[in-house]
Amino acid sequence: MALSESELIERYFRPLGAARADVVLGIGDDAALLTVPPGSQLVVTTDALVEGVHFLPGASARALGHRALAVNLSDIAAMGAAPAWMLLSLILPEANEGWLGQFVIGLAALARREGVALVGGNLSRGPLSITITLLGQVPPGAALRRDGARPGDLLYVSGTLGDAAAGRELVQGQGHGQEQGQEQGQERRQEQAARPEYAPLRERFESPQPRVALGQALRGLASACIDLSDGLYVDAARLLHSSGCGGQIDATCLPLSNALRAYGGARAPQLALGGGEDYELLFSAAAAHATAIEQAATGLGERITRIGTVSEGTGLGVNWSNDATMTAAIPAGFDHFGR
Amino acid sequence: MALSESELIERYFRPLGAARADVVLGIGDDAALLTVPPGSQLVVTTDALVEGVHFLPGASARALGHRALAVNLSDIAAMGAAPAWMLLSLILPEANEGWLGQFVIGLAALARREGVALVGGNLSRGPLSITITLLGQVPPGAALRRDGARPGDLLYVSGTLGDAAAGRELVQGQGHGQEQGQEQGQERRQEQAARPEYAPLRERFESPQPRVALGQALRGLASACIDLSDGLYVDAARLLHSSGCGGQIDATCLPLSNALRAYGGARAPQLALGGGEDYELLFSAAAAHATAIEQAATGLGERITRIGTVSEGTGLGVNWSNDATMTAAIPAGFDHFGR
Repeated sequence: MALSESELIERYFRPLGAARADVVLGIGDDAALLTVPPGSQLVVTTDALVEGVHFLPGASARALGHRALAVNLSDIAAMGAAPAWMLLSLILPEANEGWLGQFVIGLAALARREGVALVGGNLSRGPLSITITLLGQVPPGAALRRDGARPGDLLYVSGTLGDAAAGRELVQGQGHGQEQGQEQGQERRQEQAARPEYAPLRERFESPQPRVALGQALRGLASACIDLSDGLYVDAARLLHSSGCGGQIDATCLPLSNALRAYGGARAPQLALGGGEDYELLFSAAAAHATAIEQAATGLGERITRIGTVSEGTGLGVNWSNDATMTAAIPAGFDHFGR
Repeated sequence: MALSESELIERYFRPLGAARADVVLGIGDDAALLTVPPGSQLVVTTDALVEGVHFLPGASARALGHRALAVNLSDIAAMGAAPAWMLLSLILPEANEGWLGQFVIGLAALARREGVALVGGNLSRGPLSITITLLGQVPPGAALRRDGARPGDLLYVSGTLGDAAAGRELVQGQGHGQEQGQEQGQERRQEQAARPEYAPLRERFESPQPRVALGQALRGLASACIDLSDGLYVDAARLLHSSGCGGQIDATCLPLSNALRAYGGARAPQLALGGGEDYELLFSAAAAHATAIEQAATGLGERITRIGTVSEGTGLGVNWSNDATMTAAIPAGFDHFGR
């Protein structure tokens, strides 16, 4: 006999996540009851993964559990906040306990690593989608916003860019494969997807690593911050627009992994600029803070790269070589309704 | 050309909901930034409406906007908390602006009436579902939990019961109609659904009215509280189980509307006991608080009814007449995976 919603929640979700002393009442009442420490602001965000949009049918349940939380952690990281509590709304076609078990393993590992308690859950029958709402804390006035960049600031990104976009192509069979016949593309994709030197690309797509500690270390140092979900160009343009500034990205400085260079060849910089789903941090900072920022990143073992500058005016230019600047033909970021 | 996700959020969601001074940063950054007043605990809940499960294809978008928030407000009400902020995750098959416009009207009207600001949103393409996470505030220690009922306490419910279950039958064609041939049932349903004396039943299903003010008024008076989403019997059993008590419901005392008596006839008490989706409050209170509770409800214009008592032991008995008690053949509450 199938388990009821309450039994499934009891078995899979109650034990999930970190134990936190500030959870007065967790799963099991009409709502959770939480203690917010005095002298902190609340930071809240929500994001969903939908089958057929954000992942293909048959995607690894364990990877989905990780990714559903990771995309939300990345938003909290971009605010410079400390994550604390999450609520999960899971819509599932059937009470598949094998799937649920794997999903919970992926979700719980990341939740415990980042100290996040699961304080609310909702389980419904329907087409597969996963919505997480994540709550965090930040000292008043310390949050990293999008609107604080100033002309003269430096632009930095964390990690390497474009890997996840390449990984998505490998997993979902877009990119190169689409230019060929259906069957030939399919074969090419399977052959490519299996190549061990591309494993880091698939890994970056399926298991993004949010820069939570780095975000908090940037408090008081970065002037603005955004997480890269829709692609560097689109998200950098957003940050600059919010700040009322323009800017310039030097495409010759973009941090590209060896795996991406091997996979993408000449397309690698485009994948880095427009591919999306990097879940890295893009941030601006006054030049006076450059040394402190680089030391903070080194201390955390996080790679950061200076990729451009903030300027007066509007618009975002991209310098593709040492003597050519262009803003046209920039690949568009991912937008669920715009394309 | 279709609007992008950002444009849709800008047009439909940014203006939605109440304006609140405690929203430091609303929609438009990586996450929202909120001020929690010192000396209050945070109350959080999440609930989803899924097409084909909680509503039929073609359901009124305006009613869905109302109901998606109402079911969450009911959880916050059952904690005795004041609602404050919500996040909306909307999965839509297409960017249908007519649908969105109506949905927002229904959602915004209830949000403004209850003082709820929309502080985060996520819009994805996919099979229609609506997930809202609602945050509220309550003074420390004042929340109404499920586990506080004590032997000798009285059991109360707000409003009338069973109307929504009858309304669901009328709207979705379950109940009487199912016992007949498909076509005959369909005809009977349409004829019934159109009868003006049943309008209040449809209204109760499509536009539940959460008892937010009543919940707050019960702080310090009720010993335990739960909202009725899965049916009186199931939810009362939950409250008693959480409290480590047993109890008795007097079915001859159930508050039944005239519309339900007309529609349900002899089935009316069963619909009230097992129908679900009432979104009324069930609460327990010491007899010493009876007068204060009845005065508080009267002051708010809310109907409340004493329907039973809390006792030692376990289990929930139902007294169907003045001289018969039975616990068998109780209709099961709604469970998405259990049936």
